[in-house]
Amino acid sequence: MDRVAEIADLVTVALDELLPRADGPESRLTEAMRYAALGPGKRLRPFFALEAAALFDIDPRSVLRAACALECVHAYSLVHDDLPCMDDDDMRRGRPTVHIAYDEATAVLAGDALQTAAFDILLHPDTHENPAVRCELAARLSLASGARGMAGGQMIDLLGVRDDLGGVARMQRLKTGALFTYAFEIPLIIADARESQRQALTSFAHDIGLAYQIVDDLLDVEGDEDILGKAANKDHAQGKTNFVTLLGVDAARHRVAHLADQARAHLDVFGPDAEILKASVDFVLQRRS
Amino acid sequence: MDRVAEIADLVTVALDELLPRADGPESRLTEAMRYAALGPGKRLRPFFALEAAALFDIDPRSVLRAACALECVHAYSLVHDDLPCMDDDDMRRGRPTVHIAYDEATAVLAGDALQTAAFDILLHPDTHENPAVRCELAARLSLASGARGMAGGQMIDLLGVRDDLGGVARMQRLKTGALFTYAFEIPLIIADARESQRQALTSFAHDIGLAYQIVDDLLDVEGDEDILGKAANKDHAQGKTNFVTLLGVDAARHRVAHLADQARAHLDVFGPDAEILKASVDFVLQRRS
Repeated sequence: MDRVAEIADLVTVALDELLPRADGPESRLTEAMRYAALGPGKRLRPFFALEAAALFDIDPRSVLRAACALECVHAYSLVHDDLPCMDDDDMRRGRPTVHIAYDEATAVLAGDALQTAAFDILLHPDTHENPAVRCELAARLSLASGARGMAGGQMIDLLGVRDDLGGVARMQRLKTGALFTYAFEIPLIIADARESQRQALTSFAHDIGLAYQIVDDLLDVEGDEDILGKAANKDHAQGKTNFVTLLGVDAARHRVAHLADQARAHLDVFGPDAEILKASVDFVLQRRS
Repeated sequence: MDRVAEIADLVTVALDELLPRADGPESRLTEAMRYAALGPGKRLRPFFALEAAALFDIDPRSVLRAACALECVHAYSLVHDDLPCMDDDDMRRGRPTVHIAYDEATAVLAGDALQTAAFDILLHPDTHENPAVRCELAARLSLASGARGMAGGQMIDLLGVRDDLGGVARMQRLKTGALFTYAFEIPLIIADARESQRQALTSFAHDIGLAYQIVDDLLDVEGDEDILGKAANKDHAQGKTNFVTLLGVDAARHRVAHLADQARAHLDVFGPDAEILKASVDFVLQRRS
């Protein structure tokens, strides 16, 4: 889908402008941050933020900056999740992970400073002229990524405490769902959207986020490491339960199809304006990497 | 000095209220965050924020919340700096460091989520009714703690690239100075202070921050590990230069005394109101741990 690739390029160029550069010896840190954030990536969360923003009459430059901040948090989480003491991954998106390309200490710091950069970007007056909007954007990001969101979900994932679908679903909602939902909160906050629009996009985010995770679990079982750009079969090798180990492949595929239909239906409230967003559902879920 | 202990208690109680608690298995994360942030500590940065705030007619509750956010960032930096891939310290403030008391993965996550919590606290409407003030408080914290501040300084420290006093001073300015200065920026931002007041407190922060670091380097050479609560002689053992290895003990002590006099002189602009802040200088610099 051209639109996804187009937005990915737009976001990469914007991120390149927004991420700090340093002259002194600390340039090693800013280079590692850029390596992590500017490498190949689908920029799926920014895509959803920008595509959902097209449903409203708001300045796309505000959305682009906020989407870049979101991508910084996503990139920081990948750098830290890949660390030897976490998931211990050597490859990510077909390239050595940050702690391999640099070293562990630099990877910890690069993740730390990418998180800080996200707030720096959001809080800058260029993001929105109204400080109340900037505050709300940043506050919601902190909620989505902290102990009650992404970081909490990663803790649950590390502990491996999830014997049933409820446990796996709760872990997904925190670890990846919260940040997925934030992508849609960006235009909702900037547009000061109506409650019906808020509910529609939040429900869409919920279904798409869950379906995306199930596809991820399917790829972990069935995927090709060369295409994935990272190791496959990790959950199985580590004895971790996920949607596919609990549901089986067929039921998991069925669940994805059902969630896709349901997600599209949520968007009916927006009428024909939501066609691109609806069309993106299959593209996003029929991925091979 | 009773006032320092009094404020330390105040900050610990406030932090206990502000830090997240979780019910699910992710409670391991929130417990590790509390272990890191609520343990014994001098709360020196919050002390300076609150004591400097007394020079202005501002709501101390705003300052206390911002000071707690600052302490969260300080705590996160200690958790990550102590990691095996960084400074590899087993003890901190007389207790096992977070990666020893819990594990490395939990320590990485706890540091991450403490950083997020700092922004969460600052951006909440309870911190200040004016969102422009909340934005400014959070934006300045991101500047002080990111790649151009604390994280950049830690990168320089890890690389060990500092052969002369200029290099050591620049490292200190980024690694510890930026956050020290932020303590004084809290009341300056909330009070919308005059330029002369801004310059006075920023200069005070600069001198005190530098003197504090030189004392730290002196304690590394001369300190008692039982009182320090952490390993001593680390820089020497790692062949790192610091103020004391470059200046020698006597000249370093002389420099501290000179900076203390200069720091107090900056406060003259505030008249007798600044007496407690002036009196704190010797207390802070005559520490043994």
